[in-house]
Amino acid sequence: MSWRFALIVAPVAADDPRSDFADTLSVIDPDAPALSVGELSTQRGDGIFETIGVVDGHPQEVEAHIARLAHSASLCDLPAPNAAQWHAAVDRAAAECPAGESAIKLILSRGVERAATGLEGPTAWATASPVADMSGARTTGVRAVTLDRGLDSGAASRAPWLLLGAKTLSYAVNMAALREARRRGADDAIFLTTDGYVLEAPTASVIVRRGDTFVTPEPTGGILHGTTQLSVFDWLEDNGHSTGYEHLPAAALADADAMWLVSSVRLAAPVTHLDGADLPVDAELTAAMNAYLLSPRD
Amino acid sequence: MSWRFALIVAPVAADDPRSDFADTLSVIDPDAPALSVGELSTQRGDGIFETIGVVDGHPQEVEAHIARLAHSASLCDLPAPNAAQWHAAVDRAAAECPAGESAIKLILSRGVERAATGLEGPTAWATASPVADMSGARTTGVRAVTLDRGLDSGAASRAPWLLLGAKTLSYAVNMAALREARRRGADDAIFLTTDGYVLEAPTASVIVRRGDTFVTPEPTGGILHGTTQLSVFDWLEDNGHSTGYEHLPAAALADADAMWLVSSVRLAAPVTHLDGADLPVDAELTAAMNAYLLSPRD
Repeated sequence: MSWRFALIVAPVAADDPRSDFADTLSVIDPDAPALSVGELSTQRGDGIFETIGVVDGHPQEVEAHIARLAHSASLCDLPAPNAAQWHAAVDRAAAECPAGESAIKLILSRGVERAATGLEGPTAWATASPVADMSGARTTGVRAVTLDRGLDSGAASRAPWLLLGAKTLSYAVNMAALREARRRGADDAIFLTTDGYVLEAPTASVIVRRGDTFVTPEPTGGILHGTTQLSVFDWLEDNGHSTGYEHLPAAALADADAMWLVSSVRLAAPVTHLDGADLPVDAELTAAMNAYLLSPRD
Repeated sequence: MSWRFALIVAPVAADDPRSDFADTLSVIDPDAPALSVGELSTQRGDGIFETIGVVDGHPQEVEAHIARLAHSASLCDLPAPNAAQWHAAVDRAAAECPAGESAIKLILSRGVERAATGLEGPTAWATASPVADMSGARTTGVRAVTLDRGLDSGAASRAPWLLLGAKTLSYAVNMAALREARRRGADDAIFLTTDGYVLEAPTASVIVRRGDTFVTPEPTGGILHGTTQLSVFDWLEDNGHSTGYEHLPAAALADADAMWLVSSVRLAAPVTHLDGADLPVDAELTAAMNAYLLSPRD
């Protein structure tokens, strides 16, 4: 569990035509000091990120993650990332990942605030690290509680400065929600709007099974569009199930025939209890879903 | 404008009885790499901060800032800071500040996530740097726009995991609101609740004058309790004015006899326009207020 790898990425313009990015990627000691105290990522949580699962050295759904990084950049008025450069960074990091499961993290920060010269443009880096054994969450499942996100369903479209569809580094609330879930004896949380609709988990998407239909809250700006949820929906459709995006009332959770929290590293975790009440678990389907998510995917 | 100073603080327990903290404070090169990529401040905006104004080497309202740091730590389940240690860090940083105005920033982070060993406890640092010339904002004033914060007045008490009373590093929304204000031709923003009450500016408190009474939104969890607002209220009371905390409807802004955004570094900036409409400015009172805020205060 002790290997770890890090790369500083010197961002180039989105339309930079070069095809070799080697001299924009600098390998560093992942445990050594690397970032200045002037970093706006650390002072303001002002930047964006992606976490990519890696299985036996193969990074999963890279295209979707880099597309979402670009979407987050646009919502945050950050310079558009160069997709080919980030692909190169992911490939370089993936090459360091041993057999088994790892995670690659991409971070694009607003940059460094320097007293002398003002802001000098974005900074960026990528890390790769081993991941803890997730088999418990994938088989035994997780206990979840619903938590009020304080926002109504209309907030995202009314107030784009709330950055609700961007995967920013400002995750203090997400982390606090996970601590609150643990205080309540659960493992994870599901955020609800004040008008009673399902949003997402602090670091995962919610998928609900209703008979033979699988639904997830529509990603219309109020939540992130989950890359793993997209993959799971493709797989479900390929296996004859129907899937859909809905404006999902909280009551739909309690009535679910099954529920999962899906994310890039933990993959599909069946929800066994919601706010203390039992939920049905389909162990066989969950195992097949995770087997699919552990197969190489682009 | 190019000097800058930074200290790494090795946090000690809140009840550590020592009185000399010198060997817990390490001066570093403020522009050199100092933080690891595993920093949770940078990965998750997971930490808290304070910004302290410094005038001619005197740090202002240190007690109130360190008390608020402790309050934020409590809301974020971070270990309680050792007040004497942070005082020592502020004193050490203030000793480096030249004549004129400077700013000291204190940061307490969740710590570094290490693959090998898990979380190892909080990390912390302090910086000092020059501040830009703020005389324009203090005399000519600022144009403000109101922006929907997406949250209702009850959110803070209903959902403490939203951390609304904590000064966390997760400021991406605050920064986005300032960009939105600039897009609208203004300098700053004032957040409103969805039910139409005044909250705060992204990096300042709002004070409204109504006749001879000065009011600010009550800091009941939904906003930070401004250290500069507290100072201004003391000064106003000492000068025969009455002050109060209110649940302040947005309409009170348009009807104000004067309005200020007050904060530790910019101090008191009169609001000249709100959502494009002129507001009365009391230049004399504003000048006196800023003269007070520029005098040494503890």
